[in-house]
Amino acid sequence: MSVETLTLDLAKIRADFPGLAGGWHYLDSGATAQKPQSVIDATVNAMGRDYATVHRGVYARSANMTLAYEEARRKVAAFIGGLEGEIVFTRGATEAINLVAQSWGGANLKAGDRILISTLEHHSNIVPWQLLRDRVGVEIDVCPLTADGRIDLYAAQRILTPAHKLVALAHVSNVLGSVLDVERAVALAHGVGAKILIDGCQAVPRLPVDVAALGVDFYAFSAHKLYGPTGIGALWARAEILDAMPPWQGGGSMIDRVTFEKTTWAPAPTRFEAGTPAIIEAIGFAAAVDYVQSIGLSAIHAHEAGLVKTLRGALQAMNDVTVFGPEDSAGIVSFVIDGVHPHDLGTILDEAGPKHQSVAIRAGHHCAQPLMDHLGVPATARASFGLYSDESDIAALIAGIERTKRIFG
Amino acid sequence: MSVETLTLDLAKIRADFPGLAGGWHYLDSGATAQKPQSVIDATVNAMGRDYATVHRGVYARSANMTLAYEEARRKVAAFIGGLEGEIVFTRGATEAINLVAQSWGGANLKAGDRILISTLEHHSNIVPWQLLRDRVGVEIDVCPLTADGRIDLYAAQRILTPAHKLVALAHVSNVLGSVLDVERAVALAHGVGAKILIDGCQAVPRLPVDVAALGVDFYAFSAHKLYGPTGIGALWARAEILDAMPPWQGGGSMIDRVTFEKTTWAPAPTRFEAGTPAIIEAIGFAAAVDYVQSIGLSAIHAHEAGLVKTLRGALQAMNDVTVFGPEDSAGIVSFVIDGVHPHDLGTILDEAGPKHQSVAIRAGHHCAQPLMDHLGVPATARASFGLYSDESDIAALIAGIERTKRIFG
Repeated sequence: MSVETLTLDLAKIRADFPGLAGGWHYLDSGATAQKPQSVIDATVNAMGRDYATVHRGVYARSANMTLAYEEARRKVAAFIGGLEGEIVFTRGATEAINLVAQSWGGANLKAGDRILISTLEHHSNIVPWQLLRDRVGVEIDVCPLTADGRIDLYAAQRILTPAHKLVALAHVSNVLGSVLDVERAVALAHGVGAKILIDGCQAVPRLPVDVAALGVDFYAFSAHKLYGPTGIGALWARAEILDAMPPWQGGGSMIDRVTFEKTTWAPAPTRFEAGTPAIIEAIGFAAAVDYVQSIGLSAIHAHEAGLVKTLRGALQAMNDVTVFGPEDSAGIVSFVIDGVHPHDLGTILDEAGPKHQSVAIRAGHHCAQPLMDHLGVPATARASFGLYSDESDIAALIAGIERTKRIFG
Repeated sequence: MSVETLTLDLAKIRADFPGLAGGWHYLDSGATAQKPQSVIDATVNAMGRDYATVHRGVYARSANMTLAYEEARRKVAAFIGGLEGEIVFTRGATEAINLVAQSWGGANLKAGDRILISTLEHHSNIVPWQLLRDRVGVEIDVCPLTADGRIDLYAAQRILTPAHKLVALAHVSNVLGSVLDVERAVALAHGVGAKILIDGCQAVPRLPVDVAALGVDFYAFSAHKLYGPTGIGALWARAEILDAMPPWQGGGSMIDRVTFEKTTWAPAPTRFEAGTPAIIEAIGFAAAVDYVQSIGLSAIHAHEAGLVKTLRGALQAMNDVTVFGPEDSAGIVSFVIDGVHPHDLGTILDEAGPKHQSVAIRAGHHCAQPLMDHLGVPATARASFGLYSDESDIAALIAGIERTKRIFG
């Protein structure tokens, strides 16, 4: 066990997560993270003892819920170095990116404008731009990867022209774990006058993020990968950009004044939150941020880096395993085993036996089919860590791989 | 107490709702309903003991969550008489209506086409059509109300022409409680070849709804008004209409195959659920449906009708109170008191005293500013019932109104 690993009190941490109970090894935190009891407790209180609507009630309970909801916005903003007025609560990161594509993109991009994405993007950072392409006629360029699976920013530099109005890249690859040099990507994008959107889904649970220091324009992430509830995520956008964006969805709360002839809009971020918001989920989201901050992202990152090093080393020691992505991957390891389909591996790993516990990994295209095409595989097996992962999870995975190979051998 | 009221075991029901504890009278269920313990318990299990992602995992926990998520879809569909494949989970009713406007409306409506809404619509059934008007040039007509605050379907019949491609109306008014004759509205809409969307937010917690029997084309509602979680709602759309609708938001899960050149879509309803869905919320939604069905909507409707009759009678007995809406309002009573602003009434009602408990009502425009303009008031006070409301809530409200009038007198 590495020195960094020891900085987390894993026994205590693991006891915080009811989803880890029952004797299994959960290595699918990149798909979604388990929730600590504090997030569950915050949810229970928000759904029961404290429940009321927000922004409207003239009674104290509703006023208190409004304070809690807006406090959640402040916490989520501060967590990534943003301002309160720059956070829009969305259904998730996917909706956040669609919001930018349809509102900002619809208003600011026109036929002939270009968008740069990369080969490793998740479908959520590909398809919204394709839908925009179909609607307004923008062109999409794809930045290739380095041999070890990073977005090749030298190539990006060669591709980018003043016709590029947006660069949209993953901060951390959900398949390879490769970490983008965001500051350099920002400099390249801004150098040609383009805005830059970062898909931060896999980054915010794994790295300290400061959007102001990074200089990005848009940052999207979800709560459920950050140990928080499903059904909520956030778009951070620089205030002056967000303020100028037209509404996307219409409804209650996002208006200033409605008449049948003419409707005027509330200021951002309210303008982008039509209807009763995900009140309970926002409060759970804030509790998740509190939990993660109580441990600290530097410690979490160091912990996961240690686990990645151990796992990659063990896999690389097998001569029939191909491990993808860079050595310094952030918490995510994808691999394939010669002669064993990743789905079969996943299924066998899942089966507990008299002498071994179940191991949960993900097998598939990970919503990144173009990256699979690039890697030349239909699917990979992926182990992804959370702050609660430990060496016993890796040992169980390695033992399960050996068992699988014996079955297929 | 009416005979119908006695059919519900209110002491038992009220004990199911932790949000009702603490000695207050909650008369704002039209804004959002309190949640029974069974919904909270389902949420806790889904967030903890059972938590995993859906649709992707090769391990048993994820497969089980997928079954639970799709079982939730079946339950929600059956609850309103629809088919499983006809339910899209959305963030709420507002998003459901925006989905129809942007996907169906964007693909099927063109400049010169007309949409008919009504004077009493919630902003969520006005603004999405205005955004569509700005985008494609449709025209919006407004159906007036009868003297007692119903959508005037005789007027609708006179307005409708073959240029009308959509009729979009509230099943139950969130301000007046007036119930639409949906079957007649359907006949009128279909008579000119228009589709019909019904905003069912206030109806599904108050009336038995069967979309197949009613013959509607789209039906939108939220979970949080139906004793379920925030952050989720549903769009029901007739299968052949939903199947033909283009995607609205792009991302994971909603695709068949992604390449940078061309992406193909999953069938409906998956095509409309981009990204990790609101898994926990869907399971809570199903628990809410179970709870409501265990009591029965006919009993709930009769119970609320009895409460409406009692409250309207008490208010109408005061010569300085104007009560809006029809006598057979479904669970919602709006009113104003001469010389007392609704906000002041709401604030005073909220203050508990040595001899009285706090009463929570809503005061404001209720996201229905055009209806306020029609009624000639800036705001109303609104008391709205839930299945747990009882005569003690009404007595507390009436006593609070008398107290307020003494203060302002």
